[in-house]
Amino acid sequence: MLDQSTICAISTPPGTGGIAVIRLSGSDAFPIADTVYRSPLEKKRLIGQPANTLHFGTIISEGTVIDEVVVGLFKAPHSFTGEDIVEISCHGSVYIQQQILQLLISKGARLAWPGEFTQRAFLNRKMDLSQAEAVADLIASGNAASHKLAMTQMRGGFSKEINQLREELLRFAALIELELDFSEEDVEFADRKSLIELSTRIGKLLKKLTDSFKLGNVIKNGIPVAIVGETNVGKSTLLNALLNEEKAIVSDIHGTTRDVIEDVVNIDGTLFRFADTAGLRETKDTIETIGIGRSYHQLGKAEIVLLVTDISGDVKLIINRILQIRKKITGQKVIIVANKVDVATQEAIKQLSEFLFLSNESLVFIAAKSKSNIDQLIEMMKQSIDFKTIGPQDIVVSNVRHFEALTMALQAIERVIEGLNSGISGDFLAQDIRECLHYLGEITGEISTDEILGHIFKNFCIGK
Amino acid sequence: MLDQSTICAISTPPGTGGIAVIRLSGSDAFPIADTVYRSPLEKKRLIGQPANTLHFGTIISEGTVIDEVVVGLFKAPHSFTGEDIVEISCHGSVYIQQQILQLLISKGARLAWPGEFTQRAFLNRKMDLSQAEAVADLIASGNAASHKLAMTQMRGGFSKEINQLREELLRFAALIELELDFSEEDVEFADRKSLIELSTRIGKLLKKLTDSFKLGNVIKNGIPVAIVGETNVGKSTLLNALLNEEKAIVSDIHGTTRDVIEDVVNIDGTLFRFADTAGLRETKDTIETIGIGRSYHQLGKAEIVLLVTDISGDVKLIINRILQIRKKITGQKVIIVANKVDVATQEAIKQLSEFLFLSNESLVFIAAKSKSNIDQLIEMMKQSIDFKTIGPQDIVVSNVRHFEALTMALQAIERVIEGLNSGISGDFLAQDIRECLHYLGEITGEISTDEILGHIFKNFCIGK
Repeated sequence: MLDQSTICAISTPPGTGGIAVIRLSGSDAFPIADTVYRSPLEKKRLIGQPANTLHFGTIISEGTVIDEVVVGLFKAPHSFTGEDIVEISCHGSVYIQQQILQLLISKGARLAWPGEFTQRAFLNRKMDLSQAEAVADLIASGNAASHKLAMTQMRGGFSKEINQLREELLRFAALIELELDFSEEDVEFADRKSLIELSTRIGKLLKKLTDSFKLGNVIKNGIPVAIVGETNVGKSTLLNALLNEEKAIVSDIHGTTRDVIEDVVNIDGTLFRFADTAGLRETKDTIETIGIGRSYHQLGKAEIVLLVTDISGDVKLIINRILQIRKKITGQKVIIVANKVDVATQEAIKQLSEFLFLSNESLVFIAAKSKSNIDQLIEMMKQSIDFKTIGPQDIVVSNVRHFEALTMALQAIERVIEGLNSGISGDFLAQDIRECLHYLGEITGEISTDEILGHIFKNFCIGK
Repeated sequence: MLDQSTICAISTPPGTGGIAVIRLSGSDAFPIADTVYRSPLEKKRLIGQPANTLHFGTIISEGTVIDEVVVGLFKAPHSFTGEDIVEISCHGSVYIQQQILQLLISKGARLAWPGEFTQRAFLNRKMDLSQAEAVADLIASGNAASHKLAMTQMRGGFSKEINQLREELLRFAALIELELDFSEEDVEFADRKSLIELSTRIGKLLKKLTDSFKLGNVIKNGIPVAIVGETNVGKSTLLNALLNEEKAIVSDIHGTTRDVIEDVVNIDGTLFRFADTAGLRETKDTIETIGIGRSYHQLGKAEIVLLVTDISGDVKLIINRILQIRKKITGQKVIIVANKVDVATQEAIKQLSEFLFLSNESLVFIAAKSKSNIDQLIEMMKQSIDFKTIGPQDIVVSNVRHFEALTMALQAIERVIEGLNSGISGDFLAQDIRECLHYLGEITGEISTDEILGHIFKNFCIGK
């Protein structure tokens, strides 16, 4: 399975910079680097130099100096890939980077496939599969929460716990398989009580992990926030204030916003995915009807609903409308956003505040147009999602592949528990346990196919 | 002049990649790095580690792991800047790069200005000014010739020779200044014969260097090639064939190409700057007249002129037109490109060949539309510019600042020689020698002002 060739790639971002790093990994990394490297000290060779050292010198191609470089040496197994690694730090000209890369290839190295360095790290057991996947997530992470998630996963995350439970389960599986061999003698090698206890523990962990996926997914892709309310209360203006730019169409004509506009914005390290929706009112316009349909659909996907209302009008009517829309929203955190506070009467503000306080609703007064009090609204939104739950010890699943494997494993272990309680025969038990073991093994890569690996690593960049 | 603060910057190209490198330079580089670095070996600190070593570990901010990194250590004076340098090799996520950079700044480092690392290398006498400038040229180099030029310059180039001659001249200057102190006694401390000999040597070198600038500039910015000829002979089609893409407008209507289109293309490591020009014919169309005016202007800037003609028509007429256009071109290498050879008669080909052979003109037959024989044309163009002159020992000036200083120094030394021959008084001699010394010193940075330095380093990228 392990390709023995020595691979090379530009590992730093593409383009021109101060410096760039070209990485060589494999058993011939040192000999290949030595054919192109010249030290200012006549006879110095890279082979024979101690691990984890840096060496100034030049890269030479047919007598011509390509560049002055610094070469870093890592020796197997104490390297990222677990193989010998040479890192050539050159000047960041695209031309020089290409010249050195081509030179290394001409000396016997092969251009690495996307993610091949990390794949080798996995195949050489420097990390498990979920950790390897976290490397890609880490590189793609664009905010504090998704970075934390990827970092936790890369540093071991839940795979250690899963591996432990899987090994305990493996022991039981072996005992039950043994029972099957002696099936005519009706013995029980596997203690059923202990097996129920273990399965319950596994089930609990898997439940906790699958439950965490909603949060994990939200962290990775942004917290979906739906902005709803009647037409012309300033939803698009609010979205613009939140986005700090003029993306949505804003006009005075009722029903301007027909399409759902989505915008992802990073506010102080938290990713929000805002959806501006059509106004919620009765309409005969077909296109607008579709838009309103989408609004309600959007509500179902949202974690937070901002119910926007125009406080400059008649308070009784406003409260009425809020109640009308409010009853259609269930399961989401709702923040009632009273807009146009700058032109509202003190009486209206007081009445709305009192009513919503009694109804136990979250309320914030803003003026979207002048961007007043938007900060307070953002603060309320952040408090709606409790990110404190993600400590370094805490487990949040954000990878769809993991979620699917965990769900399958959970279903299998639930069947095991059910079977144990109903005294099912060993054959069926063994089959469900094997299935659970299989899916648990898929997460950490104990069980992996070329297809799974190919799918995971094709999304990496070359050079990682 | 030397700023003592410790500076930091992302040195790798901007964007996302496998890895990125953040560089810290200055006396506090080690202490600052130590505040954020944690080794897997509990008590290991970066301070006290040997120079030129690599260390795996994590970057920690307020108890949270930002990334797993490899840290490279370089100690003053044996580093690029001549100061202590710490290079942090992190995962190539933009978010992580920014987090680490901000963390280093919060610990007392300052974000580096563009080119500040190289500027420090210059100020710490790790390289002279022309070498520092070559670093920027090297990073920007996009082809073999400009890369060779920058590399030669970075590795010392002509600055060593200039410095030697400048020091010899300095000695004479001192002697002549001494003469001035004793002017009433009419002594000659400086041997006039030796001074003439030295001045002549300096003059010869400066002449050679200033003469090389035309070539150097051409290498750096591309060899200007003008494509001229009557309308509708296939100039735009030829340009497209040379560029291998459809940039210029090609049509059957006479006079389509009104603007001069410039395209720089790298052919086997040589940079060509092609200008497609309006057809050279009489016209009443005002806009086209401007275009034709530009064509002739373009001719003046070209090193190579491709005179394109349509060989499918009447040969006598063709030869007539060639002669007509040919006499307007002086001083450039001209290649007569006979297009549409695929639809020409054997007789026409024979007659044109014979006539041009007798006229001692370079001729190539092509079919631009089907891209036949374009390779031969390119070969002829390459032979027109003799790049063999640039050996590793050879000196080619490509920097405008150097060219200007060299020109001023040459004028001064010519005045010195003239003055010596005509027996001019010591005062005038001393003044011209001082001027020559000044301009020679400017090149290598022996003499530099904040203005010159600011101008040079502002064009660098941050992180170099």
